Amino acid sequence: MRYGYFDNEKREYVVSNPVTPMSWVNYLGTADYCGIISNNAAGYAFYKSAKTGRLLRFRFNSIPMDRPGRYVYIRDNADGDYWSASWQPVGKPLSVYKNVCRHGLGYTVFESEYKGIKTNFRVFVPIDRPIEFWEVEVTNNSNTERDLSLFTYAEWCFWLMDQDLSNFQYILYTCRMGYVEEGIIDYSIRLWPNRRPQGFMASVLPVVSFDTDREVFIGLYRHEGNPEAVEKGICANSLAQGGNPCAALQNRFTLKPGETKYALFILGIGDAATYGAECRRRYARREQVEAEFQKMQDYWAERLSQFTCSTPSAELNTMVNIWNQYQCHTTFNWSRSASFNEAGGRDGLGYRDTNQDTLGVVHAIPGLVRNKLVDLLKGQLASGAAMHSVQPLTWEQGPHNVPEESQIFSDDHLWLLLSVPAYLKETGDFGFLDEMVPYADKGTASVYDHMKQALEFSWTKRGPHGLLLGLAAAWNDCLNLTGKGESIWSTFLYCLALDEFIALASHLGR
Amino acid sequence: MRYGYFDNEKREYVVSNPVTPMSWVNYLGTADYCGIISNNAAGYAFYKSAKTGRLLRFRFNSIPMDRPGRYVYIRDNADGDYWSASWQPVGKPLSVYKNVCRHGLGYTVFESEYKGIKTNFRVFVPIDRPIEFWEVEVTNNSNTERDLSLFTYAEWCFWLMDQDLSNFQYILYTCRMGYVEEGIIDYSIRLWPNRRPQGFMASVLPVVSFDTDREVFIGLYRHEGNPEAVEKGICANSLAQGGNPCAALQNRFTLKPGETKYALFILGIGDAATYGAECRRRYARREQVEAEFQKMQDYWAERLSQFTCSTPSAELNTMVNIWNQYQCHTTFNWSRSASFNEAGGRDGLGYRDTNQDTLGVVHAIPGLVRNKLVDLLKGQLASGAAMHSVQPLTWEQGPHNVPEESQIFSDDHLWLLLSVPAYLKETGDFGFLDEMVPYADKGTASVYDHMKQALEFSWTKRGPHGLLLGLAAAWNDCLNLTGKGESIWSTFLYCLALDEFIALASHLGR
Repeated sequence: MRYGYFDNEKREYVVSNPVTPMSWVNYLGTADYCGIISNNAAGYAFYKSAKTGRLLRFRFNSIPMDRPGRYVYIRDNADGDYWSASWQPVGKPLSVYKNVCRHGLGYTVFESEYKGIKTNFRVFVPIDRPIEFWEVEVTNNSNTERDLSLFTYAEWCFWLMDQDLSNFQYILYTCRMGYVEEGIIDYSIRLWPNRRPQGFMASVLPVVSFDTDREVFIGLYRHEGNPEAVEKGICANSLAQGGNPCAALQNRFTLKPGETKYALFILGIGDAATYGAECRRRYARREQVEAEFQKMQDYWAERLSQFTCSTPSAELNTMVNIWNQYQCHTTFNWSRSASFNEAGGRDGLGYRDTNQDTLGVVHAIPGLVRNKLVDLLKGQLASGAAMHSVQPLTWEQGPHNVPEESQIFSDDHLWLLLSVPAYLKETGDFGFLDEMVPYADKGTASVYDHMKQALEFSWTKRGPHGLLLGLAAAWNDCLNLTGKGESIWSTFLYCLALDEFIALASHLGR
Repeated sequence: MRYGYFDNEKREYVVSNPVTPMSWVNYLGTADYCGIISNNAAGYAFYKSAKTGRLLRFRFNSIPMDRPGRYVYIRDNADGDYWSASWQPVGKPLSVYKNVCRHGLGYTVFESEYKGIKTNFRVFVPIDRPIEFWEVEVTNNSNTERDLSLFTYAEWCFWLMDQDLSNFQYILYTCRMGYVEEGIIDYSIRLWPNRRPQGFMASVLPVVSFDTDREVFIGLYRHEGNPEAVEKGICANSLAQGGNPCAALQNRFTLKPGETKYALFILGIGDAATYGAECRRRYARREQVEAEFQKMQDYWAERLSQFTCSTPSAELNTMVNIWNQYQCHTTFNWSRSASFNEAGGRDGLGYRDTNQDTLGVVHAIPGLVRNKLVDLLKGQLASGAAMHSVQPLTWEQGPHNVPEESQIFSDDHLWLLLSVPAYLKETGDFGFLDEMVPYADKGTASVYDHMKQALEFSWTKRGPHGLLLGLAAAWNDCLNLTGKGESIWSTFLYCLALDEFIALASHLGR
């Protein structure tokens, strides 16, 4: 079975058959704001942290598969029939409903056609604002005038992902939804003890009706595939007080044969009445959205143009020049949080993962890699070992960072001896080695001494055969080697690290 | 809107309109095995612990609402039409599909009628086995012979409830399903590091086909309301290796006009090939299932007959004589774990909750209350304060039980001064006061001294006005009063506790 193909011209992966056995996801956003979107528009969003900044809700490993997401329903008001701009959630028969999903660099487009109505639904996150654009272009390819409604739908998450999953005594008694400035949904809540995160969804076209209460929009014993409000053709203007908040806005317009209408919805982080209203004004003209799209495309072109190859294998070129690099930048940005399999409940950066993640992007964004290396060095202990995961957002030096002896891994700290030299080889910025960086528990040392200390730690942790002890685990987390167990794998890593360090020291004459 | 009524004769609550705005749940089981089932057959099951013994999976706060559960599908093989023995998940139009749900004491019955086929689906847990019976009686009320299939469906949970919710790298790579003895599904998995919990589902009637892989039974982009296997009329005999395991068994039979067939499915804890096969043999005759049902009804009759009232208010009589007592026994058995709102991720007994829970049942089951009081006394610290929650399943004395000073509540320990006297007043078992019970952290004392120590602790924790300090919180968890804050509420509780203790001491002449 074939589900799609690479369009190298546009640097897109095109999913031409939406009935994929698993979701095929793309990433939206370039730094603080992360959106995930599947080939059926399922997905979620978080801001800075997947654990504590979850803006849009997602049900992992669920039935129906992978819901909710960023949904746009189209309703023909003449006969009440409705469908979605992505195949799911309505899931019209593919004999009469056509759909193509294009996953591009930082954006996803859904093209659909049903009963003579064509839609082009594009979602992206601009590079310097914590918002996402939902652009919907609707074209009447039929011979008669059509009276159509658009309905958006997303489900707000309770920011704290683990609470959202299980603490219903808390999350279901918290939200107080608002509707401001004729067309902007206000999702402001108060979290204990003193956080007040805010989200909004705004429509540029006039809003006919809205819902902020999930149960009202969806209706009893229904789901995203057959929401009651869409079936009725009008929302109830519900303002959720507790329960589950959602973002549903209705536009309505008529289209003459051949006519096209452009609708824009903006969803993001910030106060609805001020920042939401400002965004709506700023992007009232389509050209300004297009300018943001271009800036975002330039961002990716810049990142991907630093290394290209041309080999006889077209497949290799596609992967090396586009998709591997795109993936590497994504893991560099969000570690393992941006995923449908990793729920994002573990905050922070895995020590070894993140060291590895720098290797794939250091040629393109050495400055950002330098910052990330400092984050990692601050997760190293004065002993030379490392914390298994570091939380840059909340890092504070102190003895609370010292893991139990049994929780020290044999490889974590050694990865610094690969990542730092990679940065130096790329940039020649040897001054970095003299930069003073605090340890996680106490004291401060130069980057050079951090590296040396990592080697020292491993040297003191050798087993009966002189090989490195495996400690809590070597790279393979499942091999717990506490006691006298030695790791050949970690010993190899140590030798490689030592080679790197010797080469560096001799280059510097130290 | 009216959804149902009390049937006092049968001691049932009858849900006559299944379209309830929220689920109306009942409890199955009497001690170690707990099942929860809604008026639409949604729900889950756990064994001993809602946190670490979750056998059947449930999606809390989900869309579609409250799934999955204990589903039985009926399929007419002549035309392929199918429905469910409970209204949901298929949800046939109520103009043509009739359904009544009867929540009784420890059992739930669903009566349905559709196209001349009547079903009576009864679920209960016997008092001394960790299994549940799914009895399905199918009657042909039409004038023609009918060729029918039954399909069961439940989704296995990964035992560890928090892992099940979020650690997909773990739970989706673990199950290895089996099918044994021609008709028994084997759900045995290996949990890290060395637990091997087992579950099974057996059919007494011959099995035509089965599925153990959720995605195969349900099908892509479908849900419990339109499973592919039921639509096709046959399962794929899938044996899940990883992924999400389920329990689907198909029976098939013809019914002449007026004829009735009885199908029985047994789901529970234990090895499929041995215990599952034994259960199937033991309950091959319907009378033996009925005998278990009677024993279970006797159990409830015994519990509820210890206190009855007859007042001019029929409503009051109904609540006091049946439902309040039923609820009290349920909270006594499972604390706050048996619920659709409390996800059950917090193991253990809340200190104050469980003390209170004893008050509602001490007249009926004083012996069990005595055991529970010992569990609670073992959660008291030598200082007199109490742990905010105790884990009887894993309790071990030691300093690890001592909470942070800032986590001591002002009321927890004082509830002992209400619960223990209530037990004594009911039983006259004053010898209990001399029983030696260990403290949570160190040392052992008589029950009498435990009580005295509780009062002593509070006496040392008075504030500027001589009232009790509020500490981490008084009864209202939201009022955090650390520092000099005093709690009038806790002071009142202290006075009541003191009165109880003085009365007790003077009765004993101590």
